[in-house]
Amino acid sequence: MATPRAVLFDVFGTLVDWRGSVIAGLSAFGAARAITADWAEIADSWRRAYRPSMDRVRRGAVPWTLLDDLHRDALMDIARRHGIGPLDDEDCTQLVQLWHRLVSWPDVVSGLDRIKRIAIIGPLSNGHLALQVALAKRNGFAWDVTFGSDLFRHYKPDPEVYLGACDLLALPPDQVMLAAAHNDDLAAAASFGLQTAFIARPAEHGPATGDRAKPSGPWTFIASSVDDLAAQLGA
Amino acid sequence: MATPRAVLFDVFGTLVDWRGSVIAGLSAFGAARAITADWAEIADSWRRAYRPSMDRVRRGAVPWTLLDDLHRDALMDIARRHGIGPLDDEDCTQLVQLWHRLVSWPDVVSGLDRIKRIAIIGPLSNGHLALQVALAKRNGFAWDVTFGSDLFRHYKPDPEVYLGACDLLALPPDQVMLAAAHNDDLAAAASFGLQTAFIARPAEHGPATGDRAKPSGPWTFIASSVDDLAAQLGA
Repeated sequence: MATPRAVLFDVFGTLVDWRGSVIAGLSAFGAARAITADWAEIADSWRRAYRPSMDRVRRGAVPWTLLDDLHRDALMDIARRHGIGPLDDEDCTQLVQLWHRLVSWPDVVSGLDRIKRIAIIGPLSNGHLALQVALAKRNGFAWDVTFGSDLFRHYKPDPEVYLGACDLLALPPDQVMLAAAHNDDLAAAASFGLQTAFIARPAEHGPATGDRAKPSGPWTFIASSVDDLAAQLGA
Repeated sequence: MATPRAVLFDVFGTLVDWRGSVIAGLSAFGAARAITADWAEIADSWRRAYRPSMDRVRRGAVPWTLLDDLHRDALMDIARRHGIGPLDDEDCTQLVQLWHRLVSWPDVVSGLDRIKRIAIIGPLSNGHLALQVALAKRNGFAWDVTFGSDLFRHYKPDPEVYLGACDLLALPPDQVMLAAAHNDDLAAAASFGLQTAFIARPAEHGPATGDRAKPSGPWTFIASSVDDLAAQLGA
């Protein structure tokens, strides 16, 4: 398989530690308001709402909705269930913005800088463009191209995201690689003809990560970090 | 006026010396084929076809067409008129690709790196995304966000481009600045509520540039280079 001309990265979990960052942000919010709660459970609940909320958009049950707004709706519901509400508008905005300030895993910036020498690099995430720009600024991701779900008005694993990115890059899918910590994302990418790289993130879901951090398909590359992927690509 | 949260840049002429780069590329092409021609005049003719060809798209006389394809159509016509044709498909592709390899003015990379410290930076060009990515890779433009005309399926000065970029950034227009060497581009941006910065490029059209390199409106900033704009912005 030839070296890809572009390597696109899933972001939540693959590049940034959403769980650790959201728990830290929620805990700080709670401390400032003297609210005690199981912030880890709240973070995990918030993330569990992610897939079903996007799936409602994907099957047309609700119109196109940005991830910030999906996050906001889920948060209000979770806050009610965990007895930490009601949250006012400003609280919600502040907490939804936690997803714009997620911290990257330690191997990411150096790995991206290496891969950038041999390929076009960019995010291919369900986050929208403004969120991707914020995460890149926050962490120093030196993207060559910035994709966001709002460019396609589709969420992964819809084909419009993967093939839309290839089309905008004017590259055939077999010259584009998706790197992700999630087997289902890679399975979709592979089904549309992209190369694939699994990046193991055994801490993504905390102690409950389990087999989700293990590759389950015939991915083009299997790596332990972005730096490791860079090395395997000869970058 | 508050410091803009994002500074978006026109590209052809403002950041890259399209004329010098295209003349050099055409001359090399001619030398390799022992074709003699007035390459400067051909480059200028090619550029003169730019605005009318986009205007045909803008008023709906032809469907959405990428700049590469507009460039290709114009080139075939110009080659015929200048007696350097017929060009075959491969020749055309090679020459159209000259616009993906334009060289930046010497102040650009350092100026962008400075402005990047205080704002989101990105291109806002009539070139499509793949072309912007190629120019950024070629020249080292460290964009935070990459816009291309194909994201909007509109050409400047259509409002969809300027306001579409603000919308994707989730910023109100008055927190976004367009920096450009062209008064008409800035006039459109200002009419949609963006801040404006004129960057003088007295060599853009060679000896014939004349008053086109002079600001003709009440732009927020008037600068002699991207570095100068960085200094005026306090970056």
